Amino acid sequence: MIAITLPDGSVKQFDAGVTPMDVAKSISEGLARNVISASFNSVTVETSTTLNTDGSLVLFTWNNDEGKKAFWHSSAHILAQALEELYPGIKLSIGPAIENGFYYDVDFGDETFIEKDLKAVEDKMIDIARGKHEFSLRESTKADALDYYKKQGNEYKVELIEGLEDGTITFCDHDTFTDLCRGGHIPNTGIVKAVKLMSIAGAYWRGDENNKQLTRIYGVSFPKQKELTEYLALLEEAKKRDHRKLGKELELFTFSQRVGQGLPLWLPKGAALRERLENFLKKAQKKAGYEMVVSPHIGQKELYETSGHYAKYGADSFQPIHTPNEGEEFLLKPMNCPHHCEIYKYKPWSYKDLPKRFAEFGTVYRYEQSGELHGLTRVRGFTQDDAHIFCTPDQLDAEFKKVIDLVLYVFGSLGFENFTTQVSLRDPDKPEKYIGDPELWVKAEQAIISAVKDKELDYVIETGEAAFYGPKLDFMVKDALGRSWQLGTIQVDYTLPERFDLTYKGSDNELHRPVMIHRAPFGSMERFVAILLEHTGGNFPLWLMPDQVSILSLSEKYEKYSQKVLTLLENDEIRALVDHRSETIGKKIREAEMNKIPYMLIVGEQEENDGTVSVRKHSEGDLGSMTIEAFSKMLTEEVKKEIKEFNV
Amino acid sequence: MIAITLPDGSVKQFDAGVTPMDVAKSISEGLARNVISASFNSVTVETSTTLNTDGSLVLFTWNNDEGKKAFWHSSAHILAQALEELYPGIKLSIGPAIENGFYYDVDFGDETFIEKDLKAVEDKMIDIARGKHEFSLRESTKADALDYYKKQGNEYKVELIEGLEDGTITFCDHDTFTDLCRGGHIPNTGIVKAVKLMSIAGAYWRGDENNKQLTRIYGVSFPKQKELTEYLALLEEAKKRDHRKLGKELELFTFSQRVGQGLPLWLPKGAALRERLENFLKKAQKKAGYEMVVSPHIGQKELYETSGHYAKYGADSFQPIHTPNEGEEFLLKPMNCPHHCEIYKYKPWSYKDLPKRFAEFGTVYRYEQSGELHGLTRVRGFTQDDAHIFCTPDQLDAEFKKVIDLVLYVFGSLGFENFTTQVSLRDPDKPEKYIGDPELWVKAEQAIISAVKDKELDYVIETGEAAFYGPKLDFMVKDALGRSWQLGTIQVDYTLPERFDLTYKGSDNELHRPVMIHRAPFGSMERFVAILLEHTGGNFPLWLMPDQVSILSLSEKYEKYSQKVLTLLENDEIRALVDHRSETIGKKIREAEMNKIPYMLIVGEQEENDGTVSVRKHSEGDLGSMTIEAFSKMLTEEVKKEIKEFNV
Repeated sequence: MIAITLPDGSVKQFDAGVTPMDVAKSISEGLARNVISASFNSVTVETSTTLNTDGSLVLFTWNNDEGKKAFWHSSAHILAQALEELYPGIKLSIGPAIENGFYYDVDFGDETFIEKDLKAVEDKMIDIARGKHEFSLRESTKADALDYYKKQGNEYKVELIEGLEDGTITFCDHDTFTDLCRGGHIPNTGIVKAVKLMSIAGAYWRGDENNKQLTRIYGVSFPKQKELTEYLALLEEAKKRDHRKLGKELELFTFSQRVGQGLPLWLPKGAALRERLENFLKKAQKKAGYEMVVSPHIGQKELYETSGHYAKYGADSFQPIHTPNEGEEFLLKPMNCPHHCEIYKYKPWSYKDLPKRFAEFGTVYRYEQSGELHGLTRVRGFTQDDAHIFCTPDQLDAEFKKVIDLVLYVFGSLGFENFTTQVSLRDPDKPEKYIGDPELWVKAEQAIISAVKDKELDYVIETGEAAFYGPKLDFMVKDALGRSWQLGTIQVDYTLPERFDLTYKGSDNELHRPVMIHRAPFGSMERFVAILLEHTGGNFPLWLMPDQVSILSLSEKYEKYSQKVLTLLENDEIRALVDHRSETIGKKIREAEMNKIPYMLIVGEQEENDGTVSVRKHSEGDLGSMTIEAFSKMLTEEVKKEIKEFNV
Repeated sequence: MIAITLPDGSVKQFDAGVTPMDVAKSISEGLARNVISASFNSVTVETSTTLNTDGSLVLFTWNNDEGKKAFWHSSAHILAQALEELYPGIKLSIGPAIENGFYYDVDFGDETFIEKDLKAVEDKMIDIARGKHEFSLRESTKADALDYYKKQGNEYKVELIEGLEDGTITFCDHDTFTDLCRGGHIPNTGIVKAVKLMSIAGAYWRGDENNKQLTRIYGVSFPKQKELTEYLALLEEAKKRDHRKLGKELELFTFSQRVGQGLPLWLPKGAALRERLENFLKKAQKKAGYEMVVSPHIGQKELYETSGHYAKYGADSFQPIHTPNEGEEFLLKPMNCPHHCEIYKYKPWSYKDLPKRFAEFGTVYRYEQSGELHGLTRVRGFTQDDAHIFCTPDQLDAEFKKVIDLVLYVFGSLGFENFTTQVSLRDPDKPEKYIGDPELWVKAEQAIISAVKDKELDYVIETGEAAFYGPKLDFMVKDALGRSWQLGTIQVDYTLPERFDLTYKGSDNELHRPVMIHRAPFGSMERFVAILLEHTGGNFPLWLMPDQVSILSLSEKYEKYSQKVLTLLENDEIRALVDHRSETIGKKIREAEMNKIPYMLIVGEQEENDGTVSVRKHSEGDLGSMTIEAFSKMLTEEVKKEIKEFNV
């Protein structure tokens, strides 16, 4: 008999040789139907693996990441079988599960394989799946494994096996197909009900451009047809909401090859949008006792040597800037904290002066490989909504909570209602990884945990995920398509105050070290605008909209009246524009809809005579006629409802 | 007989051998009394030089820069004589006139010379001056000149003479003294009525630190004692108003050796002041049809090769930033125009879209030698209130005038009532110095001249002072101490549109080049704040003041009432603070006065009972008691009077 411990802590006795599937059945028939993968003592196993010792068993279903991984990994086997049957003589290399599906890299030899061939492969895969073939692992000696692939002339598998240790090599068989494989499969192919091969791409063997280029086939599969349909619809929607596409259409930002990749140029509408976001945060920060500062975008290398950044990141960063003489060396600033530490030092402080909260919309530069760049979410220059709070250890608790309030206010005002948090603590078994007094660490970690509890946040604790200088709290928002994005972060830091020798005079008249809190509710303006674009599909909250109103004249005769409407709205600080082109009203409406302008005001003879406007709301339609004053009031009220005052 | 042309264009006949002084006497006795120097055919001459050919003569008095130069240069001779008499055996090197006075570099040998020795030298100089000794030039052969100084053992003069061509060497004699000298003296020493030796400093011979260090004696002299007294008072006042001193006292900005010299860190009060200035300009710019953009602080080297900046300034600038791989090269941006050109290119434009006016508070970085750095006026990183207007050639005239209106509005709102302008045109004799179509140049120059005339500006035209890419208009303001500062600039540019291949579609459906206007009313935020500090001595206009009001409680009993006053003022967007320390009211007032806070509100029992405040105005004193509302209204009105709306 062996003792199997389940995730809920319960322990069950089984005969040695029991399989995870047997255990599932012993719990419930429903679980047995849904279990698709398992891990035993934290090692991935098959659902058919026999268990012969005591241990912890976790059963995975489609709802676990582990379950999906096994599902997609097994789908890659099915893909490989389908390809071999349709294209005999091809050479398989590797076929892993990835974040959203799987791929297989294949050497088609002289054969050409193009997008339109994917459909036939999909059909073949479904055929194979329907056979409900069981996956089973089979051990092999290194010699046998090499022999097998050498006979096939598959140099890729041979190379892979040569890198493995004898005694650890397994094959996975299903139906007529076998593949070198470490394991982690679903019980049988029949679970795979829906398959979509997404695309093909070139991929160098082992990612090395000196090697042969193979054909990579990307696919995704699901246990239900409905899930595939939903997934494809989501992809379609995500494509429509791609911030790079919307940013261009709405004329928010652009890139220039000559300025450099990853360096956004903010166009007037984007710059104004960004400024509104900044002003919104500035106002709340002012209420919360922050003070704005301004620091340069470069600093002497010595500054980053002091902070420790240069030692850690110097080699992978933008390289030092030299001066024509005097032998000075500067770096583009990768973060604002060293500058703010130097600002803190401009005069001596007493405990009565603290906390000091220095805020700056500070543009920082970090080198990313060009292949990693992506729109506004992965750039080489970005503006952090940065602030550093310098406080006494006693104030940490309260200050941390205040920062959470501010972050929640920001998310609430921008329509991110769905978010989780992660508390990253140090690994208590590896004290050498962290710097600073362990007592202060305890205090800081307790401050964060007490704060998230107090604020009733949805949180997970990740041990060992703290920065080397202190624990932190990260905010992950879910967007309208259910995708998770890391946004704001709050970090506690005992290190920089030490490295920069920051002090304050305590009530005991002695010098003490302040604690620092780093925080950025938006994270960066670039990334935040990108996520907001994808979250809203460009339909920003009204208060943020570049153009809130478009005044559409029925003909050029009403230009004067249109201008009057414009002036009255602008007096009420409403952002409006006039479309006085000699186009049909239908075309004007279509274009305003496309530009996502929240309100369209149609003006013609009737409106001019009555001093009214005919109001149309974006994607909703006609709201009827109202006076200019009534419309302006309605819009102003709507904005007020969206963006409440921040209460400290 | 020779014909002498005078500056007013009149031509007079004189016998050959006439001197400038004779000519002065022929015009008026008053002029003869005041003439102190002259130039003939643009070459500096003595007032005693005999003129033997036809030519143009200009006579200079103390009121001309040329006159002052001769005065101070001659004073250096007197200084040298005084030193030789008091310290026989010293070696003289060079003694030129400078912007405010003169200096002489002297090798005192084993003799020590210190500040307190200056007084005796001054007295000796006045003695010599009273002798009314005439200055006279004497020609010498190179051999004789060398011989003279070799005998004296003066290696400095020997080295100077060795660098001169035989036949061009002159000595200047007065009284018992003689010195190697090119000329340009006042008629006699008697004109020098007041002398002040300001300081001594070390100075390497020929500025080379491998050479011997000489003693430099700085002095200034005047034709009237009263002028010296006024000058010294002005210096004293300028010292008090030194922006570096005030910036520190008022906690506006600081520098950190670790961040780097010439890289200002703006402290909370300074950052807020700067933001108010920026918001003020943003508001006016918005009304004037500008659109804000945001561009990164770096750009690929190629960007500046395209603009021509790299070829012109690259070697003397911050050197290129390399990436860890990919072989890319970036530069810190020295100006925003190349970025704005790339922004212009984000989509095609029609003539109907123009002008486009892109504005940015863009921080740029320019390398300056550390010895050249000075507070906020000479820095290595600064933020320009930059904008670039892209218009059709036909729009240039109107656009240029609009920019002048904006500049005048800025100066007016900030208390700079006293300014002049300089129109810089191309040198028509050197067409090779300029690029672009001569016809467009004519048009651009005419646009500027017509604009300054139309706006009735006080202007001078400087031929040959245009930038290589176009003519410009510079604004020079006079501050409260009468010092001149160059602030705003407006430039016309045909070159960058060409280099960046900027186009718009004209009404003829063909592509045309836009014209660009570069403009910055403040110039840079750093420089502007510095000048404003020195102009106002820290007593900024009320609307700009970091703290407008200090609420001084008579004792801690009135803290609650003080807080109430604060809240009410803050509701009216008045910047106030409370001084609730347990100090005497006298001390609180003194400190508020020192901090230049415009209004002090004293609150005690009486005020709390009546709901009033006792108002005290900075440097004026008691204004009596008023209700909080009345005070708030008074202050708000005062601000409104200072800063009017910009009317386009």
